[in-house]
Amino acid sequence: MNHQLSGKKLVIIGPGLIGGSVARGITRAIPDCDIVVVGRQQTVLEQIVADGNAGGWSTDVGLACRDADLVLVSVPSLTVEAVLREIGSTAAVVTDAASVKGEIIQAARRVYGEVPANFVPGHPISGSEHSGYEASFAELFQNKKTILTPLDNTDAHAVALVTALWESLGSEVLTMTVPHHDAVLAATSHLPHLLAFALVDTLSKKGTSEEIFRYAAGGFRDFTRIASSDPQMWHDIFMTNGEATVAVMDEYIEDLYRLRRVILDRNSNELMTTFSRAKKSRDRFLEYLAAIDLSQTGSH
Amino acid sequence: MNHQLSGKKLVIIGPGLIGGSVARGITRAIPDCDIVVVGRQQTVLEQIVADGNAGGWSTDVGLACRDADLVLVSVPSLTVEAVLREIGSTAAVVTDAASVKGEIIQAARRVYGEVPANFVPGHPISGSEHSGYEASFAELFQNKKTILTPLDNTDAHAVALVTALWESLGSEVLTMTVPHHDAVLAATSHLPHLLAFALVDTLSKKGTSEEIFRYAAGGFRDFTRIASSDPQMWHDIFMTNGEATVAVMDEYIEDLYRLRRVILDRNSNELMTTFSRAKKSRDRFLEYLAAIDLSQTGSH
Repeated sequence: MNHQLSGKKLVIIGPGLIGGSVARGITRAIPDCDIVVVGRQQTVLEQIVADGNAGGWSTDVGLACRDADLVLVSVPSLTVEAVLREIGSTAAVVTDAASVKGEIIQAARRVYGEVPANFVPGHPISGSEHSGYEASFAELFQNKKTILTPLDNTDAHAVALVTALWESLGSEVLTMTVPHHDAVLAATSHLPHLLAFALVDTLSKKGTSEEIFRYAAGGFRDFTRIASSDPQMWHDIFMTNGEATVAVMDEYIEDLYRLRRVILDRNSNELMTTFSRAKKSRDRFLEYLAAIDLSQTGSH
Repeated sequence: MNHQLSGKKLVIIGPGLIGGSVARGITRAIPDCDIVVVGRQQTVLEQIVADGNAGGWSTDVGLACRDADLVLVSVPSLTVEAVLREIGSTAAVVTDAASVKGEIIQAARRVYGEVPANFVPGHPISGSEHSGYEASFAELFQNKKTILTPLDNTDAHAVALVTALWESLGSEVLTMTVPHHDAVLAATSHLPHLLAFALVDTLSKKGTSEEIFRYAAGGFRDFTRIASSDPQMWHDIFMTNGEATVAVMDEYIEDLYRLRRVILDRNSNELMTTFSRAKKSRDRFLEYLAAIDLSQTGSH
């Protein structure tokens, strides 16, 4: 086999939804890659090895990383710093999978003084409202995007190795700057999650919440699906990408107030214009997704 | 056959997603029910008859309703009044399928002076972001709820006939008061739709909207699914249930402001508490849905 990760040692720290899915996917895609999973719950680690999704496990980060070629840190954003400290100095290429990148750069600076050339900040844009190894699956990254945010001093070979990792899982790999990543994700992911958490919370505080949920239909279920996501993960995201999220949230609240006025004024034209424009944008987004699916399955 | 609608004439005015699905479902459930579809687009009406989903069609509301037993008015909320005027005085039981009920009661009062005893306001809580006859399907109402909001003077036999209609389509039928219906639906359906329309609109107005949509993941797609809904239908809903929607919207915006403060203060405890509470409520809602599905398929 000619894959860059053939015969190499891949250490996955935090084999939850993301890390577990990487272990499953790489096991299938590159059978001779030596995967070691590192975590705190020994029973889960043993299960992953028993399932054939890793060759070994450890609860000692430093020890596991000693002779690694590539280390993937897939833990909640605020835990990355502690893990980097345990990894310490290493010749291995290190990457992460956190949903925020500015905070991860800051964490690497606090640990290493400057961001090491062999550290490649990364973010696979794929997930689910479920979490943990038991929710993981090999196809999680297929036809999804992974964003890398290398710095000026990041080693090109390190970027190539991390790119090869995600591409072998079926993901398209793109690069962008750190602040750009955090602003785009605030708009497309962090704000929608906040809105869904807030809606469920607003309604569940009402005295009639039992009844409200009883009459809620499919639209409500889909709209609030992401409110079933892991609270710890999202806590960390808003603790670390709060400013970018609040910036787009303020634009959103301003639009809500405008719509509130439009509704109270029974401004028919403005309602039709807004809804038609939104539907058009949303339908264009779906066409874009369909076009990707087609191009990625080779059809036309 | 012993069904109340056996051998009866059912007139469906507005055979779109809802009306078309009723035509398909009743054709299967009660083959000897005489279905007549009424609309403006002759080609669509002919198609429905050609598909075997109605026995006849008409573009003349008054004529079609003359010897009807049951008339279903499934047109956008603001069009119901004009249709009731065309129906005029009738011995048939008349019901509607609009998502708001207060406005429909007002419309009936404007047309008839008082709400006739044979008029049963109704609302099947089921839909899709797609619209029109081509999106309709016989199973749309299965395992869903239909809410009827009869008034004090509504005829019990009329309520029973409309109940039989929706039950034969697989729906559970419940009754509640008009203001209660409009408040519950404002919270569970109208506000979420408004939030989804607003989010897509906010983002599509940004200079970077192309890019934002390019990186949007599955969470965003589900969250905004309902923003692909029919603008005319939702225009009518907010024109007619604006006050109830704004009332729950104001509670929501207040909660958003609280969360905004919590994020800017990096208030870790409050973030965890809010997200955990929301996840718990949402998971309870899913358990509730699962329990219904089980009870309705006869399992335990």
